[in-house]
Amino acid sequence: MSVYLVGAGPGDPGLITARGLELVRTCDVLIYDRLVARELVEEAPPEATLVARDELSQDEIEGLLVAHGRAGAEVVRLKGGDPFVFGRGGEEALALAEAGVPFEIVPGVSSLAAVPAAAGIPVTHRGVSSQVTLVAGHDIGALDLSRLAQTPGTLVVFMGLAQLGTLTDALIARGKPAGTPAAVVASGTLPEQQVEIAPLGEIAEAAVGLQPPALVVIGDVVGLAHRLQTPLADPAALHA
Amino acid sequence: MSVYLVGAGPGDPGLITARGLELVRTCDVLIYDRLVARELVEEAPPEATLVARDELSQDEIEGLLVAHGRAGAEVVRLKGGDPFVFGRGGEEALALAEAGVPFEIVPGVSSLAAVPAAAGIPVTHRGVSSQVTLVAGHDIGALDLSRLAQTPGTLVVFMGLAQLGTLTDALIARGKPAGTPAAVVASGTLPEQQVEIAPLGEIAEAAVGLQPPALVVIGDVVGLAHRLQTPLADPAALHA
Repeated sequence: MSVYLVGAGPGDPGLITARGLELVRTCDVLIYDRLVARELVEEAPPEATLVARDELSQDEIEGLLVAHGRAGAEVVRLKGGDPFVFGRGGEEALALAEAGVPFEIVPGVSSLAAVPAAAGIPVTHRGVSSQVTLVAGHDIGALDLSRLAQTPGTLVVFMGLAQLGTLTDALIARGKPAGTPAAVVASGTLPEQQVEIAPLGEIAEAAVGLQPPALVVIGDVVGLAHRLQTPLADPAALHA
Repeated sequence: MSVYLVGAGPGDPGLITARGLELVRTCDVLIYDRLVARELVEEAPPEATLVARDELSQDEIEGLLVAHGRAGAEVVRLKGGDPFVFGRGGEEALALAEAGVPFEIVPGVSSLAAVPAAAGIPVTHRGVSSQVTLVAGHDIGALDLSRLAQTPGTLVVFMGLAQLGTLTDALIARGKPAGTPAAVVASGTLPEQQVEIAPLGEIAEAAVGLQPPALVVIGDVVGLAHRLQTPLADPAALHA
């Protein structure tokens, strides 16, 4: 009996780990995030208790994990991406540790490189970028924008679509060249994936109409995207 | 017929993706890196051609991928971690694209968050760190050390063990507090995993004797490690 904090991956259900899928298939209770693929939820045993996370606060989720864990159930907490990359998995793990409930972390494929890859963008590339910076873009006031504007390499912004224009204006005002290649990838790795590529100064306008979840990538690696398209780059081809 | 650039994950064979495992199980040719788990290589069909990467230069690998791809084989190029996070996957993808060989990228679980997680360290955590910076530590001269020393959040260093003392001295000399929590995780997610935790000014000495592959994590999130240990945190428990 244990609680498993499992990363579901970036969207495509084939990108969950073999270990994570095995745990979903044998769990007693499955508590899943809104962005987790329906196909993965359907892998749970028919008799398993399914709980959609949307209706619950973070405190309620943690309470549920502790309660089911204490009751001796095999609980899978299935989270989009990786539990520890902007996934609040640490908070859930701490709640379990403090309650004395055994748990295990099963990492997942984070969107950070998988979603750019699905658009033909490697976040690192020899001679182009050997540094990657990850930030969350839903609270731009919390960012150190002056340093970010000067940071070399690739900048990947999670949850950055809603305030994209504010972010790009702030980076350009602090010295990031307006011509820096940038991309927004919405619903990355899924059949409905959409990609917009434009210079930093124009990407917010180009991305109007895209819907979350979306990842923003800023840096010269975006310039490789047009060279990495092949007939199989269709994201639907990723599906298992 | 196609070439698949597949991420094998951070070490534990259970952490390959479901899609990646399916491709290994049905391939004609498997070209694999030294750090890929033996258990995954053994998943290839008995009649598949197996090629260990160690003996080959990067150019030779790319030539092999193009040649086998053109010959119509189903080729899996199995790389440690994620192909596009310090994995040189972009170079292999470019070689295939330029040769007109269809290919597909199947991302993997990168070490960046999975290896710290296996040591109880979330790279992001509410109120502690909302930014992650990834660098490669095998060429310290190529890093912007002054900016790195001032960058907020979590710093994750790939391939950083060999020159760890040089790196930590340089960061401290440029203003990073010597008391910043730091960790080295060697063979992360594998049964032989070893973890050393110490302040930045002492971590290089603490890590003497550890062997690559190793990931270095620097930042306040390392301070959460002692609070996230449970009876199931034994990395052997991760094995499928």
